[in-house]
Amino acid sequence: MADYPIEELAHRAGMSVRNVRTYVSRGLLPPARMAGRAARYTDEHLDRLDLVNGLRRRGFTLGAIEVLVRQDPDRAAEDALRLYRGMLAPWRPEEPVEIDEDALAGWMGLPPEALDALRGDPGDAGPGTAGPGVTTARLREAGLVEPAGPGRIRILRPDMVRAGGDAVRLGIPLEAVLTLREHLDEHTGHIAELFVELFAEQVWAGYVRDGLPAEGVPRIQTVVEGLQPVATTALLSSFRARMQSTMDAFIERISGEISESAAADAARLLGPRGTERRLDDR
Amino acid sequence: MADYPIEELAHRAGMSVRNVRTYVSRGLLPPARMAGRAARYTDEHLDRLDLVNGLRRRGFTLGAIEVLVRQDPDRAAEDALRLYRGMLAPWRPEEPVEIDEDALAGWMGLPPEALDALRGDPGDAGPGTAGPGVTTARLREAGLVEPAGPGRIRILRPDMVRAGGDAVRLGIPLEAVLTLREHLDEHTGHIAELFVELFAEQVWAGYVRDGLPAEGVPRIQTVVEGLQPVATTALLSSFRARMQSTMDAFIERISGEISESAAADAARLLGPRGTERRLDDR
Repeated sequence: MADYPIEELAHRAGMSVRNVRTYVSRGLLPPARMAGRAARYTDEHLDRLDLVNGLRRRGFTLGAIEVLVRQDPDRAAEDALRLYRGMLAPWRPEEPVEIDEDALAGWMGLPPEALDALRGDPGDAGPGTAGPGVTTARLREAGLVEPAGPGRIRILRPDMVRAGGDAVRLGIPLEAVLTLREHLDEHTGHIAELFVELFAEQVWAGYVRDGLPAEGVPRIQTVVEGLQPVATTALLSSFRARMQSTMDAFIERISGEISESAAADAARLLGPRGTERRLDDR
Repeated sequence: MADYPIEELAHRAGMSVRNVRTYVSRGLLPPARMAGRAARYTDEHLDRLDLVNGLRRRGFTLGAIEVLVRQDPDRAAEDALRLYRGMLAPWRPEEPVEIDEDALAGWMGLPPEALDALRGDPGDAGPGTAGPGVTTARLREAGLVEPAGPGRIRILRPDMVRAGGDAVRLGIPLEAVLTLREHLDEHTGHIAELFVELFAEQVWAGYVRDGLPAEGVPRIQTVVEGLQPVATTALLSSFRARMQSTMDAFIERISGEISESAAADAARLLGPRGTERRLDDR
């Protein structure tokens, strides 16, 4: 395996040499091979740096990472680190997509003018300032896109933006779609808390009580991976059942409205007798 | 096409002759073929009876069904009736499954004793009355199963019960799974209302304003069918994004807990200097 000096390692990891030295001094990297007085590093060290940096981006403190790495000097520590990274993997959203701002409507499967639908919306800057810029601003506010250089945008949640395009194509105004999306995120946020609490109370708490043993890691990993399809199935099943009962209630309501308007028509056309006949099963 | 007398039609539809005559007198069936003085019916009449009965089960009043059928004497009325039935089709839950009560654990992929997990649960009848009966009672209370004759049960929401079995297999207690399911149904109920309201306000209201024109039916049908995949995609995308941020927050929390417990250990083992070193990046 090719090995290289610390400067090369830092360069490959996109870090400063100084930060790499800090990690080394805290024992976060496996020992280097010594060539005389010079330490030599390999891709194994690079992997570890990526892992540690990934955990830091996820909110892990260096102190916590140290604890995990030192828990057991070999394989088990690596497993523990991968575990925490693995806890997020099943939920990683679709990769963002970068496109020209002008291409957004086309990317959503819409004619260019469809995204001018926000023109003159009372909450916005009003007529005269419409066009793709206003729509982009609204989508940015909704956390769905962000700027990516001159005339370019990054679509942060491609599947959601695509579903929004589908809804607009069905004739639902963009503003109504965006409002629904906000409420949707609120409710799914509560649902996510239910599942994470379940995991925290029923699985994680026991692992903490046992002192975070390395041999408990495979079980945690199994639960985390297994919980993802279970949560998805349960969510969809629950949603389908509730959609059905909500649609039932809606149809019952419109059924009432149809009979009433028919009864009113009949009363107008036929006089009292007609009304009576029309109403006999209501 | 074979035709048959009204008694045969009623028998095939599982209805009384009297009720069929009521439908005929209200003009809910297409005209019969007359063979002398006897009316003869065909499978076309049977289809119509199924449709009308289906709508009644869905909460439609006979009055509303009359309006729909009379709106236009031929094809369009049939289309309108199918429309309302179609509004529910995409959300129809999985077909119920009937099994022996004793076979439930096996059907859920669990060992027989797994469903005794509710034994002695404080909310239940307490120890001594445990066993499959108590569990079945709890599942029935949750609306997941219903009795289907001696020793038999009907699983009303098979996908949900299967997901519950998966969760128990991951080591999560049945009672915790059932509690989560209740909260889940509550939140998905709110989400279902969002989508049905969107449909009611943005699509249905316009159709009512136009006087429920028969030529508007194909558009409503398209929207209803198209909304199902859009709603499912949006729900999953939203849930995935919120699961990720909730897991991020959870990991940040446990990271803090790990460092704290490590700091406490270090303090105990190494004295004040150790504590200081361990805490320097918190």
